[in-house]
Amino acid sequence: MVTLEEAKRAFIPKLRPLRWDRERHVLTILDQTLLPFEVYWVEAKDPSQIAEAIKSMRVRGAPAIGIAAAYGMVTALNSPTNDIKESLNALAKAKLQLDAARPTAVNLSWATSRMLSKANRLVHEGEAKKVDELKELLEEEANRVYEEELEAELKIGIYGFEKLNDGDVVLTQCNAGGLATGTGLGTALAPVKLARALGVNVSVVAPETRPWLQGSRLTAYELMTDGVPVTLISDTAVGLVLYKKMVNSVMVGADRILADGHVFNKVGTFKEAVIAHELGVPFYALAPTSTLDLRSSVEEVKIEERSPDEVRTVRGVPVAPEGVKVYNPVFDVTPPKYVTAIITEAGIIYPPFEKNVRKIANM
Amino acid sequence: MVTLEEAKRAFIPKLRPLRWDRERHVLTILDQTLLPFEVYWVEAKDPSQIAEAIKSMRVRGAPAIGIAAAYGMVTALNSPTNDIKESLNALAKAKLQLDAARPTAVNLSWATSRMLSKANRLVHEGEAKKVDELKELLEEEANRVYEEELEAELKIGIYGFEKLNDGDVVLTQCNAGGLATGTGLGTALAPVKLARALGVNVSVVAPETRPWLQGSRLTAYELMTDGVPVTLISDTAVGLVLYKKMVNSVMVGADRILADGHVFNKVGTFKEAVIAHELGVPFYALAPTSTLDLRSSVEEVKIEERSPDEVRTVRGVPVAPEGVKVYNPVFDVTPPKYVTAIITEAGIIYPPFEKNVRKIANM
Repeated sequence: MVTLEEAKRAFIPKLRPLRWDRERHVLTILDQTLLPFEVYWVEAKDPSQIAEAIKSMRVRGAPAIGIAAAYGMVTALNSPTNDIKESLNALAKAKLQLDAARPTAVNLSWATSRMLSKANRLVHEGEAKKVDELKELLEEEANRVYEEELEAELKIGIYGFEKLNDGDVVLTQCNAGGLATGTGLGTALAPVKLARALGVNVSVVAPETRPWLQGSRLTAYELMTDGVPVTLISDTAVGLVLYKKMVNSVMVGADRILADGHVFNKVGTFKEAVIAHELGVPFYALAPTSTLDLRSSVEEVKIEERSPDEVRTVRGVPVAPEGVKVYNPVFDVTPPKYVTAIITEAGIIYPPFEKNVRKIANM
Repeated sequence: MVTLEEAKRAFIPKLRPLRWDRERHVLTILDQTLLPFEVYWVEAKDPSQIAEAIKSMRVRGAPAIGIAAAYGMVTALNSPTNDIKESLNALAKAKLQLDAARPTAVNLSWATSRMLSKANRLVHEGEAKKVDELKELLEEEANRVYEEELEAELKIGIYGFEKLNDGDVVLTQCNAGGLATGTGLGTALAPVKLARALGVNVSVVAPETRPWLQGSRLTAYELMTDGVPVTLISDTAVGLVLYKKMVNSVMVGADRILADGHVFNKVGTFKEAVIAHELGVPFYALAPTSTLDLRSSVEEVKIEERSPDEVRTVRGVPVAPEGVKVYNPVFDVTPPKYVTAIITEAGIIYPPFEKNVRKIANM
């Protein structure tokens, strides 16, 4: 198996959507609302600018939001003050501001809480006596948030790489890549990116993933930028691609994985899982262990619906009769029966999931 | 079972895309390239205008093309002449012109051949001595082409209606409706339309069917016009709709059905069939017996691919990175294993298809 050090050396991300400037303490953000038509970078130098970027979806994807929020906390100390108590107040205010940007994003409040607790501990235990010291130590903490995320993705990549052979073609769905995680690597795309970095010839088939087109707008763009060969298809062609054995495996991300192995992910995932299962093609869900939800049952998880206009239009252009009734779910659920394995940074989880998900979660 | 007479009385099409003017001998054509954004009717009064409408896809769908071509032959006699031989020459010329509009459309040359043979027979056997007589008899023949098509669809509707219960929701794919057949009824949509006409409460879920969006542009529009409740979904939501038991059956058209029961239809059909089969939802292919191909094997049927730009853009608007590699198949193939029954105007074909398709075809 590839070691973490080997993986770190091999994979150099070409498309990192979040870049922290260590001199000027500003976060440069790739605007994902404009990709791939415009490659536009926004500079955020205080918490309100970072909150705006999160709110307007310039930054998207749970891990990316967490990283942006961690650095957002550091920028709270950009306003000049020598009063350490004032700095702690600024941090508390920044947390409120950032958390409000996307109230349902768990990674967001997790990251701001971690940063604020750290700051309070540093000050109260006397490790940071001056504002400059506090800022430097908080910057290190934000770097750790980023490094831990990257390390988890590298490990997912290493485990997933074990499932790839030279010449393999992988079917994915949506964008579970480095644009969503903020590191440039990603979860579902980590194995193929690592494989290419190690000189193994793999490629990807990306369905466009209506209604938001993350497959065509983001995944295709990200893989082209990273030098991974990619073929774009309509969502309607997923079945034929599997039928014609044009792909060797399916690798998708996950938004939530239950203790019994039910996988919640972007709508369209379930159809890939069922057809892959029927045709004997392995189906893998790749996600960090933070995605494991050991408490909820499948009936308890509500599937969010979004605006009908997302289906009635494409990039603002109407594609359907005005006022047509629409059902527009964001996620779907794949029962454990169709899941070959769940690949996490802590290892690969095989069936029976009922037993093995908890084992990994409690490690 | 509903009789043909009852069905004829019950179903009055609200959206007939082809209308023949018996006084002026012109064909009025609903321009399907503009639907549902503009409802624009084109008047065609000679074979070249009808050929143009076929070529530019204002008329689409195999049966509709056949009907348009039949009336197109009648319009060849619109230019004033009293010479019956000259009329036969005009008809021969019209056939060449019409056939060239879409060389691969089998129904097109079938309809023009039928009309030309009829004209030759009428003249040579002395039944039509004057140009006016010939024109009237040819008009009757074109009406028969239309009536036979409508009758076949009504019969498909009657057989399919047997599979519906009050309150049923039907999942379809693409547009196998009255816009495609020219009659206003259709094949896959015939049972639900007949059911509504008979006061039975059924409704439809229509996937948008990328890349051409026939589901959102045509099926949703056609059903709304006909008063059949319809819900539009992204192609990605097909799996969830079946998983959540939001539909009771799947009814799709077919472009070609092999003797062993393999169904070729618009790309995306296969995924519906596999998931329906897996979840115990019946899957029906509805098509006239002229769709049965008893000679070809599944390996012999080539799946046409179209321009990558259809996937890279939506209504002219880019949705993917420039130059991205694309696989854009038009059809997919559903193996007989996933087909509950094939519904034709000659009856319902159940498995084993190997035996029963030939039985119906040879009736």
